Formats: sequence, structure tokens, C-alpha cells
Amino acid sequence: MSFTKKIEVTKADDSRRSKRLRKTEFSLVQLKSTWKRRTGKCLSQNDKGRVSAAKLFESVTEHGHSWTVVSPIIFTYKVVQSQNLLDPSNDTLLSGHIRDLHQLEAFKSSAKPVKRFVVIDETVNNIYGSQVTKYFEARNVIYRILPLPTTEENKSMELVMKILEEVHRFGIDRRTEPIIAIGGGVCLDIVGLAASLYRRRTPYIRVPTTLLSYIDASVGAKTGVNFANCKNKLGSYIPPAAAFLDRSFIQTIPRRHISNGLAEMLKMALMKHKGLFELLETQGRFLLDSKFQSSNGLGDHKDAASVSTRVAIETMLEELAPNLWEDDLDRLVDFGHLISPELEMKVLPALLHGEAVNIDMSFMVYVSRERGFLTEEDTARVIHCMLQLELPVWHETCTLSLIRKSLCERLQHSGGLVRMPLPTGLGHADIFNDTSDETLTRAFEKWYKELSSSDHTIPETMTLNLSQHV
Amino acid sequence: MSFTKKIEVTKADDSRRSKRLRKTEFSLVQLKSTWKRRTGKCLSQNDKGRVSAAKLFESVTEHGHSWTVVSPIIFTYKVVQSQNLLDPSNDTLLSGHIRDLHQLEAFKSSAKPVKRFVVIDETVNNIYGSQVTKYFEARNVIYRILPLPTTEENKSMELVMKILEEVHRFGIDRRTEPIIAIGGGVCLDIVGLAASLYRRRTPYIRVPTTLLSYIDASVGAKTGVNFANCKNKLGSYIPPAAAFLDRSFIQTIPRRHISNGLAEMLKMALMKHKGLFELLETQGRFLLDSKFQSSNGLGDHKDAASVSTRVAIETMLEELAPNLWEDDLDRLVDFGHLISPELEMKVLPALLHGEAVNIDMSFMVYVSRERGFLTEEDTARVIHCMLQLELPVWHETCTLSLIRKSLCERLQHSGGLVRMPLPTGLGHADIFNDTSDETLTRAFEKWYKELSSSDHTIPETMTLNLSQHV
Repeated sequence: MSFTKKIEVTKADDSRRSKRLRKTEFSLVQLKSTWKRRTGKCLSQNDKGRVSAAKLFESVTEHGHSWTVVSPIIFTYKVVQSQNLLDPSNDTLLSGHIRDLHQLEAFKSSAKPVKRFVVIDETVNNIYGSQVTKYFEARNVIYRILPLPTTEENKSMELVMKILEEVHRFGIDRRTEPIIAIGGGVCLDIVGLAASLYRRRTPYIRVPTTLLSYIDASVGAKTGVNFANCKNKLGSYIPPAAAFLDRSFIQTIPRRHISNGLAEMLKMALMKHKGLFELLETQGRFLLDSKFQSSNGLGDHKDAASVSTRVAIETMLEELAPNLWEDDLDRLVDFGHLISPELEMKVLPALLHGEAVNIDMSFMVYVSRERGFLTEEDTARVIHCMLQLELPVWHETCTLSLIRKSLCERLQHSGGLVRMPLPTGLGHADIFNDTSDETLTRAFEKWYKELSSSDHTIPETMTLNLSQHV
Repeated sequence: MSFTKKIEVTKADDSRRSKRLRKTEFSLVQLKSTWKRRTGKCLSQNDKGRVSAAKLFESVTEHGHSWTVVSPIIFTYKVVQSQNLLDPSNDTLLSGHIRDLHQLEAFKSSAKPVKRFVVIDETVNNIYGSQVTKYFEARNVIYRILPLPTTEENKSMELVMKILEEVHRFGIDRRTEPIIAIGGGVCLDIVGLAASLYRRRTPYIRVPTTLLSYIDASVGAKTGVNFANCKNKLGSYIPPAAAFLDRSFIQTIPRRHISNGLAEMLKMALMKHKGLFELLETQGRFLLDSKFQSSNGLGDHKDAASVSTRVAIETMLEELAPNLWEDDLDRLVDFGHLISPELEMKVLPALLHGEAVNIDMSFMVYVSRERGFLTEEDTARVIHCMLQLELPVWHETCTLSLIRKSLCERLQHSGGLVRMPLPTGLGHADIFNDTSDETLTRAFEKWYKELSSSDHTIPETMTLNLSQHV
């Protein structure tokens, strides 16, 4: 009997146990439907089954066994620019998330009716609701559209539960019928969390309708809601099956909210892409005026709106893809997000997110100048660009003591280092842990002196310096 | 200016666009703090930075750009057998989850007080609460112990929110102060979900106190709560930082709940390990009587309790590690879980989970016999073993129509295939999609005839066949 064999095996273990430790690394091989452990040697000679990327490590100690499981999960998702997403002739909304060609064929030839659950922001629904309905009607989809007031104040677990109840009542196939979210960042975040919880993971699709969510929330894996007066305290890192980006939604966004999105675009420009910065410098005001609607026809990749959104997404994906779960705490995308959380807690909803981020960036640009990373001229160009984008560059609530408090908070939540992203030139950056309080103080004094009175107008001294650039 | 360059680049793109498609695969390389896309060629020649395991794919179509992100996240966790977990001289509970030796050194030499939030099942707290308190007091830990009634009826989002409120009030460092769950499967599942939501992922530790959770819930990544009258409808796949297994908790578990756990152990035996089956066949009753407390002293790996729990965990880890997020729907661990969910919905709480699983397995063993995978003798041995473990092998609610309904449900939720795990011998199994309704009917008739009257006694015909084995 095998039990007797077991006893013999463990007797052999016992002799080794006098050394107190035996460590073994196992690969995992599937033979028929059964996974089997194999040590390195056995693997190459005898096994022809499927080998897993996962590993098992076993240690034997005097107290018993211990195992370490190492198991990689591969997240794959699409970010797709599309035009006329709500035109019934456009397949994207229904099948644009399907990557496998065979699955796509099967979807197209299937007689089974297509079923979709849609959560749409209430305000967006007022403008686009009838188009969404027409789309699903024209495509013979069994659908349920749930309009919700997805504001920052409502961004809570209650709204997540409300969505889950409705999803459950409607009934969806958890593998083939993704939940669709149409709205701004709050809507995409809430629906993402609901989908990631339902049956431990249901695919979802993001359709951003604001500039901010187009270039920011739609691209990454984060979902979340506010909790206990803290922003995004609860959430997950489950990317959507796909994000479908249609710039035409932006034409109905208020001007101030376009500035709001431009702040995050400027962030990527300052950190990673001089070309994007120069584009914002020269075309930013035009983008704001034209609400990112191309002046020269659809499908043209040359215009400022196309180039700026594409580069913003490309640079964002470069930073997010290698760090999808934010395990690496050194993140350039945190630029503008060190002081702004504290500032937002004090001044929301008077300031929009992007505005708070911009005030943070404006101060950090002065820190960069103080450290000698940016010239006077470059600093002036950045501030001038911010003002062109109609973004605030200073706020009375952003005192030196608030800045110090923010950086202390950051220290605590970032493993004991402040990890401060700073531009080291226009479109270049690095992360620093050695900014002294003296530097901060001097930067703050100059920032205060030069910008506290600016109030959306360009300081005279800067205008002089800038004449050659714009 | 770079914008002009951009225009030139997109002009070049335009010429290629006449072919309507350009596809590029990018690797991601980190230079200083900045991630940059690189095509395959450039990579080997110029880049000396850190290369990510993530990839970016870019397509250019007439409608704009589309990107595919492929990003692997590596989950690593420990499963540790320990003795006297609550003995103040045992470090495991406080630092057993730390894998990195430098971090462990830093933890041990740190002057910073250790802080731990503990959720403990109310019943477990009545028995072990004072020991837990003494442990933390003796170790000078700043702690908060939250006893909760973690029953199947309370397994809801409300309890998750309650935990989150208390965690937030207490305050923990989201990277270094894991939440500890002490209790049965329900407790571990609820706390796991709360931890996976808090700040998008806070480490947690599982300390199972029942046999079922020792060999089942503690080993994998699943968390969850019930929702809308459905079991585990909401949850996540976030493994704990570590599971600490101490068999001594099992001594205070009622006998019937030990049988309950033995059902899941028998599942792994039937699917993967003849030795474990034979051990349960010969020693099962002894394990039940002795409540898995070794008869021959601590630290001994030879006794039935040690061997059976170790093999149960090893076989479980073999199946879970390669399929941590259950993306592969063909799962041997689903044996006993095709009919039981439907059965549980009807008879809970009269039947325990393992009991429902055993009734399912008992029927499936008859299906295996009907298909010629198991001999009459092997079938009798399995049923006899189940009865030895004091597990029900039949239930009046488990009608043929309930079985058919369960398998229909399974079809719907498993991508159109029934994916039926069946033993193909003792300790061997495979997954089948071709069991006919005729086979099911014949198996059911025999199962009904031979076992419906058995009611925890061994049928005479079987006793005869079995005499040579036990």
C-alpha cells in the first residue's frame, strides 16, 4: 500500500531533517487533466505535457512543511481609438474587445442574441442616451441601460452594490457579456469595481466621455470608490477588457473640464515628451477652443487633437504597462499627485482634480528650478503654458505647511521614501529622495512671490522671457 | 520643434496607412525612472536598462490607433505548517509571511512597534481569544481583535464593510501590517475580500481553525461573500501573504465538522493520490476519532494526521498554482462541486458543505462505474471509505431532475461544456464532456437502489466485497 511507501519516504526525510532543512523547487506539468509537480531534472527527460509558468517551492523544517507558490497572471486589454462609436454600423462597442480571431468569427456568426448591461452617467445619458438606445435597438441587442449620478460625492460602495443588484437581476454571461461603462472617470471607476467583484471578475468596457477620463482613467487598471472620507480607499487593479476612445464626446464637455483634462496631459508632457509639451505650448489654447474636435476632417492623424491624445495615451501606457498593480512605488505618473490629494481634501469641490494637480505641478516646477534642473526660461515656459491652458498655477490653500504635511503623508505611504518626480528638463524627469526642506522653503518663497498674484494672468517678467517662444 | 517632427512622422504613417494596417510589438525598457517603448531590434543593441515582462502592441488603422497591453502580475504566497502558533515564543504569526531575508532582518531589528489587526470568528474567540490576546501582549504588539459571527448566513458585503470601517479606524500600514484572519472558511473568505479591497490590496494572513479551511480555503487565492442568495457571488482572486496552518485548532472542532473536512480531502485522494485514498480507507476512522492530533508526539511527520494533511495540501497546490485565477475551466478540484451547489441551495443548513460535496462525489463514482472507469470493487471501496468517514453517500433531495438541472447550470457557466471530472481508477481522474443522459440515468438508478437505504450503514453486499481490503 502506498501509505507504507509514504512512511518510508518520510523516514528518508527524517535523516535529512537533522540538517533541519530541505528545499525543493518544482515545476508543474499537466498530463491529461492532472497537474503534477516535477523537479528540474525530471522535467526535461520525461514530461511532454503542458508546463505551467507557475512554480512551487517546498521546504521541510523541524516544524513541518512550508510551501511557496509563485503564480503569474497575465492581464491583457485593448485601448482602441474609434470614430462614431454610437453609429449602428460601427461594431466596436459590441465586439471590439474580442482579441481572438476565432472568437470574433464565432461571435459574428452566432445566432444567440447579444446581451449587454450598460451603466451610463446621468448627465451623459441626457445628451447621448437616445443614441445609445438607438444603437442597441438597431443591432438587436438585449440591453439594459442604467443611468446613475456618478459624481465624486456618490462614488461609494452603495453605488457599486446598486449596480451589482441590477446586473444580477438582468443576468449576464460572466465570460462573454461585458458590462459597459459610459461616462467620466468616476463612472468608469465605480463600474470597474462592480465588474471586478461580480463572480470574482466579469469583463467590462470603458467608454470615457471626458478628456480627463479619455487620457487617464480609461488607460490603466485601477478601479475604486471613496470610503471614510478618503479618495479611492477601496478598489481593485482589474483592467477592462477594452477601453473605446471616441473624441467626439469631448465636444459637449464644459471648457473648464477640458482644461482639467489638459492638466494630466501636461503631466505626461513634462515627464516624458518634449514634443507634446511644445504642442500644448503652441496649440493648447486652440485645443481648448476647438474642444479637441479636428478642424480638418475625421481620420486625419496630423492635427493637434489627434497627435496630443495619441501621445498622451502612448506615454501613459509606457508607464502603466510595466507597473499595472503599482508594485513599483517609483512612478513618474505620480507627478502632480504628491501635494494635490491633501489640497483636494481641503478645497474640493471648488477645485477640479486636474486643477489641484496643476497647482502641485506648478510648485514642483519651482522646486526643479531651485535644484537647478530647470532654467528660469524653461520654468517660465511651463507656467506660461499652464496659464494658456487656463489652469491655476497657485492657490492660497497650498501653504508651505500643507506641502510639508503632504510630503510626510507620502513618506508614510511610500515605504519611507518621498519618491518625488521632478522634471529635469522639458520632457525629461527623474525621481528624487533628497530634496531638502531648505530647497522646498526657497522654492515656495519664489513660487509665492511670482505667482500668488497672477490669478490666471501671465506675470510681466515671464511675458518678456517668453516672447521668443510663442 | 518636435511637433513639426511629429507631423512628418505621421505623414510617413499615412503612406503606410494605404495598406490600412501597421502592427508593431514593443518591449518596455526603463532608463533612470522612465519607461520607454522599444521594438525588438533596438532592444538588444542599445538598451541596458531594466526590461519589463510587459509588452505593448500598437496597430494603426484608418480609424486611429489601437493598443494591446499584455502585463503579467506575479502572485507569491506562503503556506506554512507550524506548531503552537499562539505560543509567544513562536514568531510565525508576526513575521512568517516575510520572504525576503533582508526585510526579515529589518523587521527583527526595527524599534518601530508592531501593529496588527485581527479578525477572529466569534466561536473561535470564545475558545482561543485569551491565548491570542496573551500572544500579542507578550510580544508588545499594538493590536485590535475584532470577533465576528462569521457564519454562512452572515457572509455578506455588510460584514466586509464592518471590517473595513474598523481597519480604517485602527489604521495600518498597507504594505507591512497584514490583516490576520483566524477562523473557518467563511471568516477567511470575508477577511480576504476586505483586505483585497482596502487601498486596492492590503496583505492578509489566513489562520484556519477547521479541517475544511485547513486543507481548502487556506491554500488558494479565492475570497468572497454571498450575494442575492447566491454563494460567493462577489469576491476576488487575491491570495493571502501567507496561510499559517496549526493542526492543534482541529481538536476543538465537532466530530461532524471533521467529517466535513475529510470530504474535501477524499476529493483530492480520488482525483490524484491513491496513497492518500488508502490512508483514508485504513486510518480515516482513527483520524476522526483522534481529531487529527498525532498520537506519537509533535514534529513527527510519520503519523496519519501529518501525512494526510500534507498530501492534501500538496495535491491541492499542484492544481491551484497553475490556475490561480481559474482561467482554465477544466479543473479536477471541481469534482464533487457540479451537483452540490444546487443541492446546497435546497438543503442548507441541514447539510454541511463537505456533506453535499460527498453526495455529489458518491453519485459521480457511480457514473464512473457505469462508464467502465471504476470496477465494482473499487466503487465499493470508495463508498465504504465515505461511510467510514461518516459522510452521507445519498440524499433524497438529490433527484435525477436536480442532477440534470445542475449539469445544465454547469454547461452555462463553463463555456458550453460540462467539464465533468471523473475518477478513472483510484487516485486517477480525467475530465469528460461526453457522459450521455442514458449513462446518468442508469448510474442514478443503481446509485438509488444500492445506497438510498444505506443511511450511514455499510450495505451488506459491499461488506462482503470489502473484507479483503480493510
